[in-house]
Amino acid sequence: MKSLTEHLWFEVPARRGFLNITPTVEALVLKSGVQEGLCLVNAMHITASVFIKDDEGGLHHDYDVWLEKLAPHKPTRHYHHNRTGEDNADAHLKRQIMGREVVIAITKARLDFGPWEQIFYGEFDGRRRKRVLVKIIGE
Amino acid sequence: MKSLTEHLWFEVPARRGFLNITPTVEALVLKSGVQEGLCLVNAMHITASVFIKDDEGGLHHDYDVWLEKLAPHKPTRHYHHNRTGEDNADAHLKRQIMGREVVIAITKARLDFGPWEQIFYGEFDGRRRKRVLVKIIGE
Amino acid sequence: MKSLTEHLWFEVPARRGFLNITPTVEALVLKSGVQEGLCLVNAMHITASVFIKDDEGGLHHDYDVWLEKLAPHKPTRHYHHNRTGEDNADAHLKRQIMGREVVIAITKARLDFGPWEQIFYGEFDGRRRKRVLVKIIGE
Repeated sequence: MKSLTEHLWFEVPARRGFLNITPTVEALVLKSGVQEGLCLVNAMHITASVFIKDDEGGLHHDYDVWLEKLAPHKPTRHYHHNRTGEDNADAHLKRQIMGREVVIAITKARLDFGPWEQIFYGEFDGRRRKRVLVKIIGE
Repeated sequence: MKSLTEHLWFEVPARRGFLNITPTVEALVLKSGVQEGLCLVNAMHITASVFIKDDEGGLHHDYDVWLEKLAPHKPTRHYHHNRTGEDNADAHLKRQIMGREVVIAITKARLDFGPWEQIFYGEFDGRRRKRVLVKIIGE
Repeated sequence: MKSLTEHLWFEVPARRGFLNITPTVEALVLKSGVQEGLCLVNAMHITASVFIKDDEGGLHHDYDVWLEKLAPHKPTRHYHHNRTGEDNADAHLKRQIMGREVVIAITKARLDFGPWEQIFYGEFDGRRRKRVLVKIIGE
């Protein structure tokens, strides 16, 4: 069994943002030498997500509006978590909707994707350095 | 390490629908010859889901009503994504709630399931052919 | 390839509750002898979740309030599933938001976690014995 572990660092300059990290993950699959296996990509912080969707700007906007409706940032005092001095309780809830991780099949040394699948890093409490873990196992 | 890769095709005749795909996945586990390992099942399209729940008709209805409440189809012009000519922005949001994928343990050559766990394909923008990926690795 | 399979049992005395199961899973990783691999932890019941978040009491409270808002328990007759004699339809919806499973990288024989990541069992229909599956594969 082969394996590869890499930590990617991000610092999104705004509170929220989506980054397409597909090319980086694809390069790591090649580097791993794995032909058949699984690739786990997960946020290592609980106010960020890794998820799969289409790279289409209108959709980014729709997700952002929708998440703010389901889990509004304000009023920040509404959340008990924010009594710790943080103002990011909503970011924990938004991340739960978008998910912590994706697991992707590796087939013939490539990410085995449908036509529109792209991997995104979703930031909900930015302006700090955060990590994503890529773990590849297989043969 | 053994591995097996299969793509399943579906064409749901309505906009939305849930299909129980457990017997198909179970047959692929047997075919793989894997005794101990992991089975990934994921939608390859970003307006569809794979998830695990009870096969109970009332629950299907409750999910459908609930998803439409959280992410309504109309008014379609409300979503920026639909400016591309699509009317399926809500399907992307519904799929996010229901999830892209499941990872299931294989133990003694069987899906290691609780008493009510069944694998479902969830369609939120049907009337077109779509794929699900099954990837099995182990020994 | 090495593998380990364990079923953990829980009986939460209230309808809802969150349990930090990180130490138990860490002990199983050590027991498995796996240095590099993947660890799947999933609820085996469809009214419970396994998810990753910070172990902070205010956040527990915020999740509970939020889930009740997105998928209220009452009126129970509102849900078709409850016509089966159950009153737990909301628990199925809450579990969908929180997720069935997590997949965690194992690196150098440890769970490869960010600074605040902890594994939780989330119960949404307690007062009965339920299981969580831990499956570890790797080398």
